[in-house]
Amino acid sequence: MSEESAMHVAYLVAIVAEAMTAALVAGRRGMDWFGVCVIASVTALGGGTVRDVLLSHYPLGWVRHPEYLGYVLVAALSVGVLAPLIVRLRRLFLFLDALGLVVFTVIGCNVAHALSLPLAIVIASGMITGTCGGVLRDLLCGQTPLLFQKELYATVSLITGLVYMGGSQLGVHHGVAMLSAMGLGLILRLLAIRHGWDMPGFAYRGKWD
Amino acid sequence: MSEESAMHVAYLVAIVAEAMTAALVAGRRGMDWFGVCVIASVTALGGGTVRDVLLSHYPLGWVRHPEYLGYVLVAALSVGVLAPLIVRLRRLFLFLDALGLVVFTVIGCNVAHALSLPLAIVIASGMITGTCGGVLRDLLCGQTPLLFQKELYATVSLITGLVYMGGSQLGVHHGVAMLSAMGLGLILRLLAIRHGWDMPGFAYRGKWD
Amino acid sequence: MSEESAMHVAYLVAIVAEAMTAALVAGRRGMDWFGVCVIASVTALGGGTVRDVLLSHYPLGWVRHPEYLGYVLVAALSVGVLAPLIVRLRRLFLFLDALGLVVFTVIGCNVAHALSLPLAIVIASGMITGTCGGVLRDLLCGQTPLLFQKELYATVSLITGLVYMGGSQLGVHHGVAMLSAMGLGLILRLLAIRHGWDMPGFAYRGKWD
Repeated sequence: MSEESAMHVAYLVAIVAEAMTAALVAGRRGMDWFGVCVIASVTALGGGTVRDVLLSHYPLGWVRHPEYLGYVLVAALSVGVLAPLIVRLRRLFLFLDALGLVVFTVIGCNVAHALSLPLAIVIASGMITGTCGGVLRDLLCGQTPLLFQKELYATVSLITGLVYMGGSQLGVHHGVAMLSAMGLGLILRLLAIRHGWDMPGFAYRGKWD
Repeated sequence: MSEESAMHVAYLVAIVAEAMTAALVAGRRGMDWFGVCVIASVTALGGGTVRDVLLSHYPLGWVRHPEYLGYVLVAALSVGVLAPLIVRLRRLFLFLDALGLVVFTVIGCNVAHALSLPLAIVIASGMITGTCGGVLRDLLCGQTPLLFQKELYATVSLITGLVYMGGSQLGVHHGVAMLSAMGLGLILRLLAIRHGWDMPGFAYRGKWD
Repeated sequence: MSEESAMHVAYLVAIVAEAMTAALVAGRRGMDWFGVCVIASVTALGGGTVRDVLLSHYPLGWVRHPEYLGYVLVAALSVGVLAPLIVRLRRLFLFLDALGLVVFTVIGCNVAHALSLPLAIVIASGMITGTCGGVLRDLLCGQTPLLFQKELYATVSLITGLVYMGGSQLGVHHGVAMLSAMGLGLILRLLAIRHGWDMPGFAYRGKWD
């Protein structure tokens, strides 16, 4: 299997897994079937959508490939039947969610790189793709977006992007740089989940507003 | 009156009605005049704006026709005087809101169809146009967006789009397909309001996060 | 120093000041360093980003000039050390925030004017640029956006835009119109902060939803 088609398969696995866990969370908040489908779509496809709108990279992925939207909706609706299975396979889904984070990050870097944007924007594009789906999900669920606060979520995206683009800049073979970055990000994320690692908080608590 | 100008009149009636009811809700939440104008604009014009940004369909409607923004602002400000009337004419405004939902949906389908997008995206474009104004209003008012949860709001948009595009695909005369879809959506929405119909909830309540 | 480079310096001062005060507010809400950086970036650069997406004015400012993102991030991170200083220099920062409001407004008007958009859209573009950063910050912090409710924030942006474009339309020298508008806006905002001026609320409290 070529590098490109392997990434494509990983992307499809990731959006399906993100849609299913988002559907589970939305369903537990008392949303109806329609709300569950909206939350699943926004979580799975929102990061890439925000990135493409900010970079004027049209048409959006799911507009060009409406089958992605189909996969996400089928995955979300299947949660009605599969919820007990997902809960039992919690570890698998946490792994797939971590895989999604690094896959989305690498794809986001690739999109900005192909547009010949500066390195800082390439890294930012990876982070936006990796994290914005979860931020939008939290906003629509009426929660303060906590994703980038917990278990190094955004930090993993940053490190994945830095290692990937750093390796590429230093002339490392593309596939090696990509796999190293994704492997490192994945391990870091899984360790952070296991040990409950957080980023240091911000200490100042003086009076302001 | 031609089909096109009838739709244009219905669109103007819909944005004015949506602006007035949104202004009423915002005013009752203690917003000042400026906040009321923002909420009214976002509710009346936000669905089309989100659609156009996602589909890269520029310039936006209200940028090309700033008079739409003017109608919305005058409608919002008039609520300071007309609020008691709107409350008295509650049924009329619920009817106009339902009309807005089906009109926005059909216009959203038309925009995506004119861009030669796939059928699934045409339906999604109708639903985004019909529902996103209310979602943005709820976010800005600090509420979990409940619109698509209550009284089949989003379901009506989906059915309207499906009947409209399904009819067109089957070779039904355009005006007939459009009027049937809008009529069916309108009746369904009004019945849902009258009888308090909701979509079935999502039953799973097990432990996840 | 030319008019243009003076505006550029004022813009840089404004985004740095907005990033620092936003970082302070975010840090006091218990966000970690990453969250503080996101909130600072969104507050300082979000208004221009929303304007550019709505007007299809690409590439976005911070994509073309990634150094802006760098200034904002350095400013946000420096708050960890400088927080006590910012609190002591509260008046200076309130002044810089007010400066940011009028500078963003004038830049927003200029962008829309350069695109030959109608006058109402030019004014709206100024207001979107001036106020949307704060609205996004409030949404991401889980607060109902109150910015345009308090101390004439949005009203100052409106008046600045009206005086600036009104003066230009009446043939007043460009620099004079700009400085008058910004000076008037700045004074109005500072007076509003000092005296706690609010816009009148919306009185109707009858039953609706």
